[in-house]
Amino acid sequence: MQTFAHVMVAGLGVLGSQIAFQVAYSGFEVSGYDVDANALEAGLHRLAQLRDRYSRRSDPADRKRAEHALERIELTSDLATAARDADLVIEAVPENLELKRDFYHKLAPLLSSTAAIVTNTSTLLPSDLAESTGRPDKFLALHFANHIWVHNTAEVMATTETDPDLYRKIVTFAQEIGMVPIELKKEQPGYLLNSLLVPWLQAASSLFMQGIADPEMIDLTWRKATGAPTGPFQVFDVIGIRTAYAVSTAGDSTQQEFANYLKTNLLDQGKLGIESGEGFYHYPHQQVRKINDAGALEDANDHAPS
Amino acid sequence: MQTFAHVMVAGLGVLGSQIAFQVAYSGFEVSGYDVDANALEAGLHRLAQLRDRYSRRSDPADRKRAEHALERIELTSDLATAARDADLVIEAVPENLELKRDFYHKLAPLLSSTAAIVTNTSTLLPSDLAESTGRPDKFLALHFANHIWVHNTAEVMATTETDPDLYRKIVTFAQEIGMVPIELKKEQPGYLLNSLLVPWLQAASSLFMQGIADPEMIDLTWRKATGAPTGPFQVFDVIGIRTAYAVSTAGDSTQQEFANYLKTNLLDQGKLGIESGEGFYHYPHQQVRKINDAGALEDANDHAPS
Repeated sequence: MQTFAHVMVAGLGVLGSQIAFQVAYSGFEVSGYDVDANALEAGLHRLAQLRDRYSRRSDPADRKRAEHALERIELTSDLATAARDADLVIEAVPENLELKRDFYHKLAPLLSSTAAIVTNTSTLLPSDLAESTGRPDKFLALHFANHIWVHNTAEVMATTETDPDLYRKIVTFAQEIGMVPIELKKEQPGYLLNSLLVPWLQAASSLFMQGIADPEMIDLTWRKATGAPTGPFQVFDVIGIRTAYAVSTAGDSTQQEFANYLKTNLLDQGKLGIESGEGFYHYPHQQVRKINDAGALEDANDHAPS
Repeated sequence: MQTFAHVMVAGLGVLGSQIAFQVAYSGFEVSGYDVDANALEAGLHRLAQLRDRYSRRSDPADRKRAEHALERIELTSDLATAARDADLVIEAVPENLELKRDFYHKLAPLLSSTAAIVTNTSTLLPSDLAESTGRPDKFLALHFANHIWVHNTAEVMATTETDPDLYRKIVTFAQEIGMVPIELKKEQPGYLLNSLLVPWLQAASSLFMQGIADPEMIDLTWRKATGAPTGPFQVFDVIGIRTAYAVSTAGDSTQQEFANYLKTNLLDQGKLGIESGEGFYHYPHQQVRKINDAGALEDANDHAPS
């Protein structure tokens, strides 16, 4: 017996479509919502690509599940239809406070009063959104990573108002859909992963900006000393130079200097990281394909409009 | 033709003896200096253990080199004898500014005026020591990591007074003794590795101290997201809880809270990390042996008196 019977996924952007597919692939009935026909069409295109990707899995049973996953997803741009049967809503609409609040205000009256809502927000706190859902006790954050099929972590983060039973239920749900739940006990901006990544990346970019060493040398140091497969500048290429730029512009003066460096030397040259074949490093075409199949590290495209 | 003909290693503590052995193993004549007969005896014991360790290598030629390495090391507590033929001194005496300066003051008049000196200091800057060597242009830092046979990085860091030709020569020397040179272009406290490690470890310990998540969950997050073999609390166990404690006590209030946690919950219970079989995690005896054979991450024992 599964935790939920019918899951609505709101927003079929890069990550929203991955979530919808993964949930359907795991055997749940899904309604996939986005704002209009164009957004739905783009979402459907992404879902079809995901089906093709999952259909290359080695286990014949997995391939069969992948081929039939789309049959369990009903796409609609009518919010009432999407919400009608849902006992869980996963919200993956664009990363904008007012936009998300507005979405919740519209959703609340259309949704069963017993239904739970989780937000996939990366940069906001669930407590910023709880009130607008009209059911703060039935609301928390469930944060996925881009390329969900390899980076199958789901950070679970509640507010002080969240029902503890719902927290446990969402942890179980995360497992049911093949995720490794990362349980946070309190709200934390950036969850666990970005709270660890950001200071590490900033230390690396500061060393570079202060002229202490080059990216290659900094990456080599980390790999050799810790046995990790990638150093910080390789991680910048994975998460994407656009995301690195956005994070750096919000930092201190050294970080802003780094943001300028990224803009002038990489972004303005069309070097976006692995996704474009070049960032701090150059990636031959074949390697990019292999990396994309394996999946990139983080939710670089999390904020793409749905 | 090798860069140097005769290398003096000053201080035969945990890391000094590893350096002396590795240099001799790489074909250099070595004079190993320490302050008295007791220190020399302890050093000789360490060197014999290293010979036994290196003698387990799979390549018969490596085993042969290991067996004969000690023959190239002359041990003495007479500074004049140790310095007589040296054209390079690697200083690995205890990590104390006055003690190191005092050593250099005594060494300078006994050493050929053309000989170079490198310091293995972890926490001082070479510019703190340059004057006391009497030859600031022939002095820089060459920083090794504990368990040199697996963690074969050597951070090369000069002062503004160091002769650039000597810098290049030391980079070549590092390669001659089987190290991967990590080249720093300017002085940086903590070199590259600790400059990356410390903010990352502090981010992790802050998350723990603030009650956001447990060590296991934080480590899991890092491993799953980056593919690294170890998360930050596993790294604490590798570098040793004593070192973690020493670093934390120098930090902000959250870090001092973490230091208190380490003292009460680990140090006072004899839990020193992998070396004692338990730290944040428990390590069965066999695993400790395997890890010690593979080598720990960092120079936890760098500061042990020689």
